[in-house]
Amino acid sequence: MPDKPRVVVIGAGFGGLEAARTLARLPLQVTVIDRKNHHTFQPLLYQVATAGISPAQVAAPVRWILRERNNVDVLMGEVVDFDLPGRIVKLSDVNIPYDFLIVAAGARHSYFGHEDWAPLAPGLKTVEDALEIRRRVLLAFELAERQTMAGHPEPPLNFIIVGGGPTGVELAGTLAEIARHVLRREFAAIDPRRTRIILLEGGARVLPAYAPELSRSAVRQLEKLGVEVRESALVTRIEPGVVWVGQERIPAAVVLWAAGVAASPLGKKLASELDRAGRVVVNGDLSLLAHPEVFVIGDLAAVKDEHGNLLPGVAPVAMQQGRAVAKNIARTLGNQSRRKFRYIDKGSLATIGRAAAVAQFKGLKISGYFAWLAWLFVHIFFLIGFRNRLIVLIEWAWSYLTYERGARLITGSTSLPGWSEPASEEKEVALPRRF
Amino acid sequence: MPDKPRVVVIGAGFGGLEAARTLARLPLQVTVIDRKNHHTFQPLLYQVATAGISPAQVAAPVRWILRERNNVDVLMGEVVDFDLPGRIVKLSDVNIPYDFLIVAAGARHSYFGHEDWAPLAPGLKTVEDALEIRRRVLLAFELAERQTMAGHPEPPLNFIIVGGGPTGVELAGTLAEIARHVLRREFAAIDPRRTRIILLEGGARVLPAYAPELSRSAVRQLEKLGVEVRESALVTRIEPGVVWVGQERIPAAVVLWAAGVAASPLGKKLASELDRAGRVVVNGDLSLLAHPEVFVIGDLAAVKDEHGNLLPGVAPVAMQQGRAVAKNIARTLGNQSRRKFRYIDKGSLATIGRAAAVAQFKGLKISGYFAWLAWLFVHIFFLIGFRNRLIVLIEWAWSYLTYERGARLITGSTSLPGWSEPASEEKEVALPRRF
Repeated sequence: MPDKPRVVVIGAGFGGLEAARTLARLPLQVTVIDRKNHHTFQPLLYQVATAGISPAQVAAPVRWILRERNNVDVLMGEVVDFDLPGRIVKLSDVNIPYDFLIVAAGARHSYFGHEDWAPLAPGLKTVEDALEIRRRVLLAFELAERQTMAGHPEPPLNFIIVGGGPTGVELAGTLAEIARHVLRREFAAIDPRRTRIILLEGGARVLPAYAPELSRSAVRQLEKLGVEVRESALVTRIEPGVVWVGQERIPAAVVLWAAGVAASPLGKKLASELDRAGRVVVNGDLSLLAHPEVFVIGDLAAVKDEHGNLLPGVAPVAMQQGRAVAKNIARTLGNQSRRKFRYIDKGSLATIGRAAAVAQFKGLKISGYFAWLAWLFVHIFFLIGFRNRLIVLIEWAWSYLTYERGARLITGSTSLPGWSEPASEEKEVALPRRF
Repeated sequence: MPDKPRVVVIGAGFGGLEAARTLARLPLQVTVIDRKNHHTFQPLLYQVATAGISPAQVAAPVRWILRERNNVDVLMGEVVDFDLPGRIVKLSDVNIPYDFLIVAAGARHSYFGHEDWAPLAPGLKTVEDALEIRRRVLLAFELAERQTMAGHPEPPLNFIIVGGGPTGVELAGTLAEIARHVLRREFAAIDPRRTRIILLEGGARVLPAYAPELSRSAVRQLEKLGVEVRESALVTRIEPGVVWVGQERIPAAVVLWAAGVAASPLGKKLASELDRAGRVVVNGDLSLLAHPEVFVIGDLAAVKDEHGNLLPGVAPVAMQQGRAVAKNIARTLGNQSRRKFRYIDKGSLATIGRAAAVAQFKGLKISGYFAWLAWLFVHIFFLIGFRNRLIVLIEWAWSYLTYERGARLITGSTSLPGWSEPASEEKEVALPRRF
């Protein structure tokens, strides 16, 4: 009995998982490889970063998700190279042969050549990123309280978010709620309501992928929540505790990076033709120009719509691509010709904060409470696992009613870049005062 | 108007929190200092370590817990020293004066002088500890799967728990369930059911604080769950990937430490008279021998019952002591004489695993399902926060019905001590096989 054709899928994000699930119904042997043991539901990661929910509520083990697909194996490991002519995927310690390969390795944040900014301004792509942001945000309030109690001047509690795309907008809106409501009554020496949340967008408007009137609505909703929005504000330098916009120096307690993404470095190992953001240029069926048995999908693929616009790096694009390549593999095995991938845009949703969001579906554009409700139901619906949906719903209902956040933990290091601990002065004795 | 007397409480564990809550009702100014921003509900920490629940479900911010006590301030920071004659607590950057001091700084695990074992065998005292144990346990299965797929011999999946107290017993029982049930169908190259869970107790019997018949019952219940229990098995050496019991060498995929505790090093700064485990010897009212205004409670205090037996390091002891010292402070302020602390033992409960536990209440001793139900209700009842109780109940009901675990995430490093990654061999091509 000859072996069934083997499909290797790299990356268990939205695209890779959808491909694996579709392939599981075919007479194939599928291997899914990911660096992490879990799929991350990235659209809700900002909720982990802002202490609303726990990592396990937006991340599920890849093995568990695919446990009932008997022809799908899962391997946790990092792909380091390919032997495209030999049809082999190389990990550090194991080589996996394939008949078809789907590369869905995604993207990381890009600091536009300023890699030294990375430790000063963490981005939000993984569970670890989210926990680091949560740590910095919560710790800033604690350090400010301690310094102020020690008799030092109250440090400026500026939270600066660089980048006004969906991630920057939702981080800014939620941080404003934390400062104004969640922590309001819990400190003695500082007043968390004096926190400034500053959203810096380098381009002309926030949420540039949305219609201009929705960008304007987003700014109004952000300002209502207490966020200072600055458009056409290009960050030129980041130092510990400071962000520069041109000649303007803004002190910062915490800096978060939501400005740019770069495709996975695996792109370079696949093709010589990459676009400016490192994405792989592919055929109409999403296969490599020189290798019809290799497909690239999701954030790693440079795919344009019929108007010549690059498809955005969002979950629906990756999922539709995952299904499309799986079906094209089935067609190839059945000696049918492949179909060109065509993206069906069902609309876009971006949340801003409590009862604040924008949404566009075809011609329909809505903002505010109803856009937020739509966002909420879509995201609960797509979240994996019944238990996660139930628990996230409980956490959200609770937060909405009480203005509390369910996961306000600081774990790991207790220092922050740019915060120097004032030296102890033997004689000084501070008497905390209630604010 | 003269200032109200100031009480400083060090440590927001069970004892410190209970003291602060009781003091909050008095005309005092209270400052609670903790290294973490959260109180940790240690009795359920093993559930975090075994991927059952999330850290936020057993840890609540100290500020949030005390948010409605207007005369209580919270400070996150590490106490480094005391000026007892000057009545000052010293942090690295702030000095806090006190009129009364309650030190409830708790304990850490002790490696009995073998501090080099710490990175090889993590213990379970903090949220960070629990996440490190979770990482190691889940990663061991992933690494074994990858090595076996790569054509290397299947590594021995031995999980060794050192120490047969309540923590060792509950870790062993729960790990057995993970290996036998939770992961059973999810791997292709390895069979998780072949995992060995080995519980090593150096003394004559597990759960030495319980009646001998309950120790025997615990062994039976553990063995039924698939744990190998070895009593009088003293660990003499730990190396990467290996545990030695005398001359016997046991290969280990993961080693966990549940063998001993040592009181906080702050004890040394308080008194010269410490017992063998570093606990501070105190007066009958829990005050320092030379400083009636300083109290020591919880795991840091060496307190004996009327039979001369040292009180165990459990939550009820710390909580009763916290209330007792708060009331003695009130008596002192009211010019009344202090009362001697007396522990009222309401019984003990230790869980072992699914429907398995032991319990003793005065003369009554029970094991198995009903002891487990009692354990479950007591722990849900004492868990802080309505939302946490609800979510933990949902997670437990789900796990009980489905044999699934809700927080199976690996975060952080992807290497383990004692696991050397086999070098890549260019020619080797492995074909995963379904187990």
